[in-house]
Amino acid sequence: MNLPLSADRLWADLMAMAAIGGTPKGGCNRQTLTDLDGQGRALLTEWCAAIGLTPGLDRLGNMTFTRPGRDPSKKPVAIGSHLDTQPTGGKYDGVLGVLTGLEVLRAVHEAGIETEAPLMLINWTNEEGARFSPPMMGSGAAMGFFEEAATLAQADHEGLRFGDELTRIGWAGGDDPAALQNLGAYFEVHIEQGPVLEREGLSIGVVTHALAQAWFDVTVTGDDAHGGSAMAGRRDAMMGAAELVLAVERIALTTLAPSGEPGRGTVGRLTVTPDSRNVVPSKIWFSVDFRHSDEAALAAMGEALRAEALAVGARRRVAAEVDTFWLCPMTPFDPALVGHVRDAARRLAIPHKEMPTAIGHDAVYVARRLPATMIFVPCHGGISHNEAESITQDWAEAGLRVLADAVLAAAKVA
Amino acid sequence: MNLPLSADRLWADLMAMAAIGGTPKGGCNRQTLTDLDGQGRALLTEWCAAIGLTPGLDRLGNMTFTRPGRDPSKKPVAIGSHLDTQPTGGKYDGVLGVLTGLEVLRAVHEAGIETEAPLMLINWTNEEGARFSPPMMGSGAAMGFFEEAATLAQADHEGLRFGDELTRIGWAGGDDPAALQNLGAYFEVHIEQGPVLEREGLSIGVVTHALAQAWFDVTVTGDDAHGGSAMAGRRDAMMGAAELVLAVERIALTTLAPSGEPGRGTVGRLTVTPDSRNVVPSKIWFSVDFRHSDEAALAAMGEALRAEALAVGARRRVAAEVDTFWLCPMTPFDPALVGHVRDAARRLAIPHKEMPTAIGHDAVYVARRLPATMIFVPCHGGISHNEAESITQDWAEAGLRVLADAVLAAAKVA
Repeated sequence: MNLPLSADRLWADLMAMAAIGGTPKGGCNRQTLTDLDGQGRALLTEWCAAIGLTPGLDRLGNMTFTRPGRDPSKKPVAIGSHLDTQPTGGKYDGVLGVLTGLEVLRAVHEAGIETEAPLMLINWTNEEGARFSPPMMGSGAAMGFFEEAATLAQADHEGLRFGDELTRIGWAGGDDPAALQNLGAYFEVHIEQGPVLEREGLSIGVVTHALAQAWFDVTVTGDDAHGGSAMAGRRDAMMGAAELVLAVERIALTTLAPSGEPGRGTVGRLTVTPDSRNVVPSKIWFSVDFRHSDEAALAAMGEALRAEALAVGARRRVAAEVDTFWLCPMTPFDPALVGHVRDAARRLAIPHKEMPTAIGHDAVYVARRLPATMIFVPCHGGISHNEAESITQDWAEAGLRVLADAVLAAAKVA
Repeated sequence: MNLPLSADRLWADLMAMAAIGGTPKGGCNRQTLTDLDGQGRALLTEWCAAIGLTPGLDRLGNMTFTRPGRDPSKKPVAIGSHLDTQPTGGKYDGVLGVLTGLEVLRAVHEAGIETEAPLMLINWTNEEGARFSPPMMGSGAAMGFFEEAATLAQADHEGLRFGDELTRIGWAGGDDPAALQNLGAYFEVHIEQGPVLEREGLSIGVVTHALAQAWFDVTVTGDDAHGGSAMAGRRDAMMGAAELVLAVERIALTTLAPSGEPGRGTVGRLTVTPDSRNVVPSKIWFSVDFRHSDEAALAAMGEALRAEALAVGARRRVAAEVDTFWLCPMTPFDPALVGHVRDAARRLAIPHKEMPTAIGHDAVYVARRLPATMIFVPCHGGISHNEAESITQDWAEAGLRVLADAVLAAAKVA
């Protein structure tokens, strides 16, 4: 199949979309359900109309653009991602997935190719979760993991509701979000948001699964005391917490999958009570984010943290509680679709490796309901959620070509 | 000297003063330069007028009440502390020092005793530092450690200025604060704010010196990264900071004075950037409060922290900076006055021990200019700056009797 894919056109589209909410530092601030989000949606709609795609819009603002297949009984093969960005986001996170999909559909259109299954392009609402929490809201709700009414009622920091803002910008539709559970396959191209591909000189990551995640709240409670009090009598919550913070790292490094792979552990937030220079803290709260390719290993990480909390608590005469905040199971991507991506990279002789995604994406919710997979391309220094986020046009083209090949394999071309 | 000291009267005064700003939980909220502070000042003035003391008021609101001595060339022997409280303070912190002084002067008045030196009672403005920073403002400024104009210009959280509030409540006087540098001696009774005396069954602490203090700002800077990124490439500021927090404790416990006494180390504040559950922190700031009886040992603690910061920085590829925030030298109390307190406790057969104060008090600024010392009494559980702060009437009486004895020894009674 020799499609008239144009990496130049893709790049021009990326720059045109980035101009909507473009920042002086070269990034993008096009947060979900803002006027700028509406402008981005309108531009995408215009581009899709130009190639005759049929638009759809569901009650959560998820946008679909469909090209019929030969066999009306076949479920659509979809390509998607998101156009919303972080407040100080980049030009590629999410947008690359939507616009590579658009370019594939455009080339298919221009070449007049018939596929057996319909093809569909999707722009999910609010993947970033920066304005309305949680992230991956549109895909998570469409796949049935969040209640529609509760999603519409979510408020941003100013108290504005998701549903009201969606209506205000004119992108509330009538389609049932759950209809998207009837896709035949789902592909998503995304920047890696990590340094591995660039460091290893590869252009494609064949994404095989999403890591399991377990997020915890840890609260260490001691007694406050004056900073002048003797050390002997103290029940210092800060010192107990510091030991547990270091345990998070140690547990991640030493809890290995059967393959020998370690986990990942992050303490991203920590608060101090009463928060005074000369007062020994009575209470420390901190967050723990554990991830692992191996479900059993992830469970072992949680158990190790609880055991450490008991040990530290007993030794320091403090209470150390570990509460589960959020769990996400290990999510395997569909072996047949992963095979299409692997085969495409091989056929096109693009340097690639198999890897997991350690980060949540719309594809992860989709994969919990139906066959889905992802294609990673490198980004410089692994930097994302940052105005400095950048990729090369060659990397974008590698993602585009592998995507096109894999999608046509899944959708079956005559 | 058999003075008609009345512990019951002292106790009644304590309860009467505590009613001004009394809280439902039995504590006191009589913050500096509030209307309630004004009411407390008025009550003290009324009590002092009843025994013929001569009131004085300086430009910072520091109140004095003087009883003449036989020898007009002698400098006054003063007793003082503060009537202001924390927002959720107790009934005794500061107040006990002022009201034991009042009771001594009352007994001296009733007994018709003549002292060689004048006697003086002082209520210092804003010891607590809860509303206007820094603490010990009135005594520190009077002793020449803070500029008067800058002190008057200090604003509270609502932007109200110290000088304006002092005038508003009617307690701005005309005396020169620096005149208080001409005291002959200064005594201050205070609750220990630590658990040592109660634990050891003692009623009096003979306070020999104030610990040296060194406060630092520590900033650890790495790189932010996604919580899903591999552990290997991280430059995690949180983990570096956790190691340094534990070093603060280790350094305090292992840096010994020649006497074998350890130091004290507290991390009371810590902030996280960017403060997101799934982002490896790029920057951690935390405060360090080091104290030691021994100046050289305190300096060694600071050096040890800097060395540890370099080591952690190198090992973790983060930048760890240690900046000095505030230094307070070791402040010895006057040996002759300490001797008067020790002798009084012995003569009265009150169980006592010599100890340092690890906490700042008005007496510490005073002691840097002129002969001064302190007398500690126990408080239950070492609890202070808390509505649950409590003492027994016996402890208050012990402080009162030792104070009277020591003051009369210093002021020389015919």
